[in-house]
Amino acid sequence: MPLTPIALNGGKACPEEPNPPKPCTGFPEYHNVYIEPGSYEIYKKTNEFPEGTIMFKELQLTLPRQNDDGSRVEPSGRGYFPGPYNGADVTVKDTKRYTGTHGWGYYNFNHHEPKALTAKVKSREECAFCHIGLGAKKDDVWVQFYPLLDK
Amino acid sequence: MPLTPIALNGGKACPEEPNPPKPCTGFPEYHNVYIEPGSYEIYKKTNEFPEGTIMFKELQLTLPRQNDDGSRVEPSGRGYFPGPYNGADVTVKDTKRYTGTHGWGYYNFNHHEPKALTAKVKSREECAFCHIGLGAKKDDVWVQFYPLLDK
Repeated sequence: MPLTPIALNGGKACPEEPNPPKPCTGFPEYHNVYIEPGSYEIYKKTNEFPEGTIMFKELQLTLPRQNDDGSRVEPSGRGYFPGPYNGADVTVKDTKRYTGTHGWGYYNFNHHEPKALTAKVKSREECAFCHIGLGAKKDDVWVQFYPLLDK
Repeated sequence: MPLTPIALNGGKACPEEPNPPKPCTGFPEYHNVYIEPGSYEIYKKTNEFPEGTIMFKELQLTLPRQNDDGSRVEPSGRGYFPGPYNGADVTVKDTKRYTGTHGWGYYNFNHHEPKALTAKVKSREECAFCHIGLGAKKDDVWVQFYPLLDK
């Protein structure tokens, strides 16, 4: 569950088009990522994401800030605390269907609530671009942020 | 999954005894909290944690800092990214057994790795104290940080 608070990223989310200002963030919140359990069982044995793997990324804002860095103070300390949900993304592995994006299909079910009921696959430039070119460690997945996957 | 980075809390974890300096944090990491699924099914219907509810809190450090606030920069933005596991805590609801701590038993399986194989129940002063006295919103559980529980 990486957390990239909007307060640490220019205080604003990046608009989708055409040239986002920097700094900004496309993910001003927690990213809580889940993998379909059957796929994970296979991954543990093969160390490869099998055909049909589904990952679900739930976006979740932080509770309101008390400090410029976006943090607040609660009994456990100063930091960040989960707040309202804020949309979701889904990826599906199908190497025959998604040949233009390295075998993964990327879907955006809104980066705000309510989540969309359906979504169409995104172009290579919209989601896959970062996964392919910016250092996702294994098979375009950011396993370096998920110790259980990074074996 | 609240996150109270050690860099935002005096740069050090609180020693357990006897008088921790301030600021410091007993939880210099992510707290990933899970509830036993059967208990959650009952909770959804009754809005009460049933007898036997088990919660598991997994502690997870962040990847090494690049900035004074503990954050680092990755393709998704500036923020905090999960790193090595760092121990675990468990609570169990049994209103007959844990009469001295409001019906919950608190167990510490180490706040470092490796996790302990067994643990003895903690005194009221060690864990329950904060849950009872510092604002846990419902039945000594911090449901205010877990929207699915905070109905």
